[in-house]
Amino acid sequence: MPVLHHFWLCPFSRKVRVVLGEKDIRFELAFEKYWERSAEFLALNPAGQVPVLVEDDDVPLADSAAICEYLDERNPDRPLIGFDARARAETRRLVAWFDGKFFEEVTRNVVDEKVMKRFMRMGHPDSAAIRAGQQNLAYHLEYIGWLTERRNWLAGDDFSLADIAAAAHLSCVDYLGDVSWSDYQAAKDWYARVKSRPSFRSLLSDHIPGLTPPKHYADLDF
Amino acid sequence: MPVLHHFWLCPFSRKVRVVLGEKDIRFELAFEKYWERSAEFLALNPAGQVPVLVEDDDVPLADSAAICEYLDERNPDRPLIGFDARARAETRRLVAWFDGKFFEEVTRNVVDEKVMKRFMRMGHPDSAAIRAGQQNLAYHLEYIGWLTERRNWLAGDDFSLADIAAAAHLSCVDYLGDVSWSDYQAAKDWYARVKSRPSFRSLLSDHIPGLTPPKHYADLDF
Repeated sequence: MPVLHHFWLCPFSRKVRVVLGEKDIRFELAFEKYWERSAEFLALNPAGQVPVLVEDDDVPLADSAAICEYLDERNPDRPLIGFDARARAETRRLVAWFDGKFFEEVTRNVVDEKVMKRFMRMGHPDSAAIRAGQQNLAYHLEYIGWLTERRNWLAGDDFSLADIAAAAHLSCVDYLGDVSWSDYQAAKDWYARVKSRPSFRSLLSDHIPGLTPPKHYADLDF
Repeated sequence: MPVLHHFWLCPFSRKVRVVLGEKDIRFELAFEKYWERSAEFLALNPAGQVPVLVEDDDVPLADSAAICEYLDERNPDRPLIGFDARARAETRRLVAWFDGKFFEEVTRNVVDEKVMKRFMRMGHPDSAAIRAGQQNLAYHLEYIGWLTERRNWLAGDDFSLADIAAAAHLSCVDYLGDVSWSDYQAAKDWYARVKSRPSFRSLLSDHIPGLTPPKHYADLDF
């Protein structure tokens, strides 16, 4: 069975978990303290980052974008990137938006400061960074709302990797209770639809030792 | 004719320029002071980043990864990502290595500090960041050497987007004279092969106002 090396609040690992779920691929999770840079893990991925997907006895696959493209190419029945080249470019633009811009502006500020620093023993959270992350979040929730008022899903008619990337990042921030959903109805409606997908269930049942999510985190009717 | 909105020392813009060259696509360059966030440019790309590719009267294409995948799908004669899914995953892993890790550890520290801060009027260069970038560069040049001692090109037998991404970043740092090539013979040999490709010529003829590159920058026999 394929093994996904991951960390709970890593949005990139979460993205791959949902893609595996959408593709109906059974897999095992292996929890990785990637920041300890063990020789075993660096042999899997010299970049020292999760996620890494190891298929039976084959060369490990690293980098979440590379893994998602690979899974979509190998399992084309339910395409997650789109059909024609222009639609695929739009999906990928939005994936990059969340994996790049949202990550830099929100996830890193909120999740790294509140949680990862503790795990990595890198000192105290920087409250100015957390506040900046929370402020930036508003703008991204508005963008999600703007898109879903014009399209069925973020990138167009169909559920895609863009929705998965956006929800993977948001789910990390939501685990920490940092999303005031009631102020962003359109984004909330979209997130409720993502949450209700079977592929998302395993993320909602995550329980990180010593860190309890707010009640609404796993609630489909939040 | 397609228009590529770019900035000279943006490695992501350079990557797209080389891909367009490899695909024999004629295009015009439009220089963009993206940090000024003009309304016209934000209408092209709400992320406010270069590169953006505008094909005749069509929706603008943003994000360098999305653009490169699009160009490769639309012009499949000379594939730049690879043939089978595993080879494509390896190319994309390495593209992410350079666009993510190299950018964070080297390009951002060296190019942003030395040049972009001046353009953006964001104060003085941080010499500690520049030194860190220069030190990190050694490790990446060794990795390029390690790969090319085992493979013809970075991702395998064929010249690929991995070589283009790596060379795009390196060319920015090299423009500032920060690569001590003589200490990294294998990486130098590989870079000489990339430099000699016709697709790379336009990068080598760049001359940024007020910033002259070292003599070896455009020299194919450096």
